[in-house]
Amino acid sequence: MTFSTIQTDISDNVMTLTLNRPEKLNAFNDTMMDEMIAALDIADAVDDVRAIVVTGAGRGFCAGADLDDADAFSSADLDPKSTDPTTWNNPQNRDSGGMLALRLFRCLKPVIAAVNGPSVGIGSTMQLPMDIRIASDTAKFGFVFTRRGIVPEAASSWFLSRAVGLSTALEWCYSGRVFGAEEALEAGLIRSIHAPDDLLPAAYAIAREIADNAAPVSVAMTRQMLWQMAGAPHPMMAHQIDSRAVAARNAQGDAAEGISSFFEKRQAEFPDRVSTDMPGFYPWWNEPPWA
Amino acid sequence: MTFSTIQTDISDNVMTLTLNRPEKLNAFNDTMMDEMIAALDIADAVDDVRAIVVTGAGRGFCAGADLDDADAFSSADLDPKSTDPTTWNNPQNRDSGGMLALRLFRCLKPVIAAVNGPSVGIGSTMQLPMDIRIASDTAKFGFVFTRRGIVPEAASSWFLSRAVGLSTALEWCYSGRVFGAEEALEAGLIRSIHAPDDLLPAAYAIAREIADNAAPVSVAMTRQMLWQMAGAPHPMMAHQIDSRAVAARNAQGDAAEGISSFFEKRQAEFPDRVSTDMPGFYPWWNEPPWA
Amino acid sequence: MTFSTIQTDISDNVMTLTLNRPEKLNAFNDTMMDEMIAALDIADAVDDVRAIVVTGAGRGFCAGADLDDADAFSSADLDPKSTDPTTWNNPQNRDSGGMLALRLFRCLKPVIAAVNGPSVGIGSTMQLPMDIRIASDTAKFGFVFTRRGIVPEAASSWFLSRAVGLSTALEWCYSGRVFGAEEALEAGLIRSIHAPDDLLPAAYAIAREIADNAAPVSVAMTRQMLWQMAGAPHPMMAHQIDSRAVAARNAQGDAAEGISSFFEKRQAEFPDRVSTDMPGFYPWWNEPPWA
Repeated sequence: MTFSTIQTDISDNVMTLTLNRPEKLNAFNDTMMDEMIAALDIADAVDDVRAIVVTGAGRGFCAGADLDDADAFSSADLDPKSTDPTTWNNPQNRDSGGMLALRLFRCLKPVIAAVNGPSVGIGSTMQLPMDIRIASDTAKFGFVFTRRGIVPEAASSWFLSRAVGLSTALEWCYSGRVFGAEEALEAGLIRSIHAPDDLLPAAYAIAREIADNAAPVSVAMTRQMLWQMAGAPHPMMAHQIDSRAVAARNAQGDAAEGISSFFEKRQAEFPDRVSTDMPGFYPWWNEPPWA
Repeated sequence: MTFSTIQTDISDNVMTLTLNRPEKLNAFNDTMMDEMIAALDIADAVDDVRAIVVTGAGRGFCAGADLDDADAFSSADLDPKSTDPTTWNNPQNRDSGGMLALRLFRCLKPVIAAVNGPSVGIGSTMQLPMDIRIASDTAKFGFVFTRRGIVPEAASSWFLSRAVGLSTALEWCYSGRVFGAEEALEAGLIRSIHAPDDLLPAAYAIAREIADNAAPVSVAMTRQMLWQMAGAPHPMMAHQIDSRAVAARNAQGDAAEGISSFFEKRQAEFPDRVSTDMPGFYPWWNEPPWA
Repeated sequence: MTFSTIQTDISDNVMTLTLNRPEKLNAFNDTMMDEMIAALDIADAVDDVRAIVVTGAGRGFCAGADLDDADAFSSADLDPKSTDPTTWNNPQNRDSGGMLALRLFRCLKPVIAAVNGPSVGIGSTMQLPMDIRIASDTAKFGFVFTRRGIVPEAASSWFLSRAVGLSTALEWCYSGRVFGAEEALEAGLIRSIHAPDDLLPAAYAIAREIADNAAPVSVAMTRQMLWQMAGAPHPMMAHQIDSRAVAARNAQGDAAEGISSFFEKRQAEFPDRVSTDMPGFYPWWNEPPWA
């Protein structure tokens, strides 16, 4: 598939999704949102894809919303002081970063962010619903919204505190300060720092371990179980779902192969496929409506 | 405004709220609760206040509930074994520390705790709904309730695990042990440790960065977005609100100034004010009732 | 009481619950689930027990579900692709690890995991609803489910991210990799690492501090307050409960003794008992139903 703002490549069971507007430090616009969502749809649909690595072309990861894209900043018709719900329920108001974030939340394949350089605004917040974040020592991060007179987006008011705790999340969002990989590592935003040339190999090593060892349907279920339960009020919600999931998976081919391969001390060859073999109760949740 | 148990000072866009009963290590009583809430009401209403620093007069931060204040410990009429809901729904039973904590939760200005010495009980739990906590090397902390035969209060059963994780929160609350700044730092309860003379300057430096760079309405929205989403079950709740907030803010003067000042590489002069320019859908939540 | 898969011992106010199938590295089966739950019922009912230490006999902690126990893996009658709710609502599908996890969640006494050696699968996930985890330097951990073609169980999709954060939880669950005590410590899964001979003494020291200093009813209330609030959407839920709890506890004998002993600088002798003196509004929650 041909995209204009991203590039995708699938090899060795890993999709690489490269933000690809290097002349603009991969600034985000609505086309990029559409294309990233389309790429994730492909990743979820294609059984060959067992993990996704997201990175940026050139020296940046993503410089935030493209400020040259007037559309992204026009809410000219909107009365910001309106107390009329219809003003606010207009689906045209939906934040594009949030639509991408929710699509990442729903993804069935592990997503690894390989942050190769500066990221700010949506460039930083889009990383939060990705599962694992690693960065080059040239990476930068910035939740710069208050310095631009706007507010955190891409559902980052939900995701960021779950990644680094409320206090750090608030401090970063209040000040809007841009900071480096060391501070991101210290706070737990990223998992590790790498020399620029070592970044993609490190991301692929993480992807490799998953792709080579884990049953894809188990991984897809695990991804949704952990993300959906992240905000659940009670562990019973997890017990409701994992009971069903254990029962279903024990009745599928993967479980038998999992036990046999373990006893035979060999690599497992799991038969089940995400495209055809997700348990019948999946998806089990009702996503809240936007309005 | 004149208070009897606290002192407030506003200068350079920062309110300093000093707990001011130094002869009692700033022990907490109902008057202090009322006065702290009144000071927060002022801080929220006065546009000159862009951040709040809370500290203690003298050598302590807050020695906990004033044990000489008999009222605070009288629930003499109450049958603790009652199973009658009316016993428990009596609003007179409302914990004063919790009323302060919920008021801090609703605050529109960033709150920085500068813990200048010992804090125990409500002295420690009142810090939890503050955004950023820093401490002098003479600070102490103690969630001492089980050692006094009572229970954690000030909604700390909600706040503490979100600050330091469940396991540490449980251990501190079970044992009731008093501990120092190093252990607090290690656990993430505080952000940094300072020599006593450097504590307030460090707090003001954090406040300064916010006051000098961030749009006040953006900060107020950010504070409520992150705190309100801290317990939200699904990121869609964040997308619902931040979509509206981005649309509103893009239609206000701050966003235009944010972009202009960025391109012109100059300090922004944001026109919007918290007192008059909060988006029309704010406040967007229904706080659960007490009973 | 005599058990076949565990051993219990109560002395000095601490129950030691030892997983006791050393010839099988204490592999978990339904009998062990029943016996662990029965032991927790005893611990909660017996006032002499003020803390619980869980450890394993022999060189392992728990090798996971006993793969020789065919029953545990038979869901032969179940159609994994079924979309019929009755397929999934069958209580026979309930995951035994989850039933143990929820029983631990409801426990009234602090539970300390002393992980003396390898743990995998349910051996690792059963630790998550325990309050404090410490480990010997020979301990291992593994959330190995995807490598066996199944999924995380024991409500670990809820518990694990609350212990170590989502990103680490996802990475461990995706890869299914077995890892050592150092990595567990780094991630916050465990609190400290000990030489094998020092492990139980360290666990007892933690238990001792609680048993010797804390009012048992206060500890029981604290345990439920913090765990029940871990997923609560709003701090008002905590204020609702802790207001009632403070009022109740102030009217009970422990509070008076707490203040007297504090002023008299002596060890408190708390009169209230968990078996007879829990406040009348306890239990205050409605646990969600399984189906």
